[in-house]
Amino acid sequence: MDTITEFINYYGLEVEKELKQIFPQNWHIPERLEESMNYSLFAGGKRMRPILMIAAAEALNGSISSVLPAAGALEMIHTYSLVHDDLPAMDDDDYRRGKLTNHKVYGEAMAILAGDALLTHSFYIVSKSLRAKDIPAETILNIIEELSTYAGPRGMVGGQVDDMDGQQGITSIEQLKQIHTHKTGDLIVCSLRAGGHIAGATANQLEALASFGYKIGLAFQIQDDILDVVGDEQKLGKPVLSDENGKKVTYPYLIGLEACTDKVKELTEEAKQVIIEANFPNPNRLLEIADFLMQREH
Amino acid sequence: MDTITEFINYYGLEVEKELKQIFPQNWHIPERLEESMNYSLFAGGKRMRPILMIAAAEALNGSISSVLPAAGALEMIHTYSLVHDDLPAMDDDDYRRGKLTNHKVYGEAMAILAGDALLTHSFYIVSKSLRAKDIPAETILNIIEELSTYAGPRGMVGGQVDDMDGQQGITSIEQLKQIHTHKTGDLIVCSLRAGGHIAGATANQLEALASFGYKIGLAFQIQDDILDVVGDEQKLGKPVLSDENGKKVTYPYLIGLEACTDKVKELTEEAKQVIIEANFPNPNRLLEIADFLMQREH
Repeated sequence: MDTITEFINYYGLEVEKELKQIFPQNWHIPERLEESMNYSLFAGGKRMRPILMIAAAEALNGSISSVLPAAGALEMIHTYSLVHDDLPAMDDDDYRRGKLTNHKVYGEAMAILAGDALLTHSFYIVSKSLRAKDIPAETILNIIEELSTYAGPRGMVGGQVDDMDGQQGITSIEQLKQIHTHKTGDLIVCSLRAGGHIAGATANQLEALASFGYKIGLAFQIQDDILDVVGDEQKLGKPVLSDENGKKVTYPYLIGLEACTDKVKELTEEAKQVIIEANFPNPNRLLEIADFLMQREH
Repeated sequence: MDTITEFINYYGLEVEKELKQIFPQNWHIPERLEESMNYSLFAGGKRMRPILMIAAAEALNGSISSVLPAAGALEMIHTYSLVHDDLPAMDDDDYRRGKLTNHKVYGEAMAILAGDALLTHSFYIVSKSLRAKDIPAETILNIIEELSTYAGPRGMVGGQVDDMDGQQGITSIEQLKQIHTHKTGDLIVCSLRAGGHIAGATANQLEALASFGYKIGLAFQIQDDILDVVGDEQKLGKPVLSDENGKKVTYPYLIGLEACTDKVKELTEEAKQVIIEANFPNPNRLLEIADFLMQREH
């Protein structure tokens, strides 16, 4: 595993192995529900949040195998948020990553319930599987508390509401940043901090991971907006300019493409600087991921 | 607090006090989201699950004040399930308990997100507020594990899927019982067991609480079906015979009203017997609640 691409591919597969065994063997889940949950869990996600969690643990020389269940749980929360986001009452998207969205395949009711089930079960995984890895109960409770904060009404769901309510009325970069902070940043930060918690990070290190997360999260989102404008439909798996057609206010819309590209670079450098200054014993993967995300084309 | 009605009213208000302060003061929640969450949290629920949790703790002479946050969390999960259940893609209900449903007031997107937020935040309350009550971390993790099991894909959400998928094809009492076990029974059992966990129940006592819960949960559901047939529209706050109009297969439909009434009595007696045999130090409220639920008219 020399290159960052190898690292990402390797741990992407490890996370998928984890996601394939989220249900204890003796559990009886309605077949169509399990199918619907799996459909979206294995719909070609980049596993960015799990990878970040693993890299955070590695930065502290923590045990990766202890992190994997929590990485799977974070991916389940991310997946539920996409399934609900795509619903007709929300963004009404037919495709995601080139595949039909969950409700287009399983119907709206099942998509709502599969999302609910993914969210609920993520807390099962964290409480049950992390205990099986001998993580201290207090640490697991810290993770659950943060998970429910960053993913909840003050975090991701709150960001989603602000995004929905503000769609036509956003006029400032500050407003937009605020939305992205919660809608995408919070769960990224949560992933990094969970990796830190499991690997025994200090309060200062947790803060550095959070600061790193918000910066690369915002860079990621602006990069997404840029790709949406200049991107190639096939690569992205969704119609280009979908945001502009939907009259969604984005970074390129507010400050132009060139300033966006600069902003992505600036945020990435700042993010790396935070990690460098926090004296992690083994920070390289985190730094490489920051660069990797900036350079992605889809 | 001599009578069971006084007990229920008193602790119903205590739970509402708890529900009024679910957000830490420094939290910034989007206003409409908080409004939508509160709308359904305070829409006249009977607080049955919290009351059962409190009665379970009382049966073990546990501290009620330690139970209250978990009782609030259970009510939040119950409330989220109703909000999502009522959605147009699900049961498409305009009214619940005589009030407009959440999506009729706040729109579908907000109802989905308010449900997501209630579910997520319930885990915050359990992890954070129970720690503040000095409940041991291991006990809290046990509660979280059970909460996510009973409310998740194997529990309540699974029951919801089975109900939805089976609506036209149910032919046996066993199938119907299976659906009710998960759709309503699991969360009732979870409430009782959580009260038990907090009050230091033994494994045998937890099992008795679960058995009691499934029995009164089923009795409650059959009673609901009976009231739906014979009930009075005004008392119930929803159109009578809505199940029959919707062609939903119910207990009265399968075995007739008289057999239903007998079944409710039988289950209630069995439930009480389980508690009596388990030698709880202070079981009276649990026994009274079983009788109370059987006699309710709405």
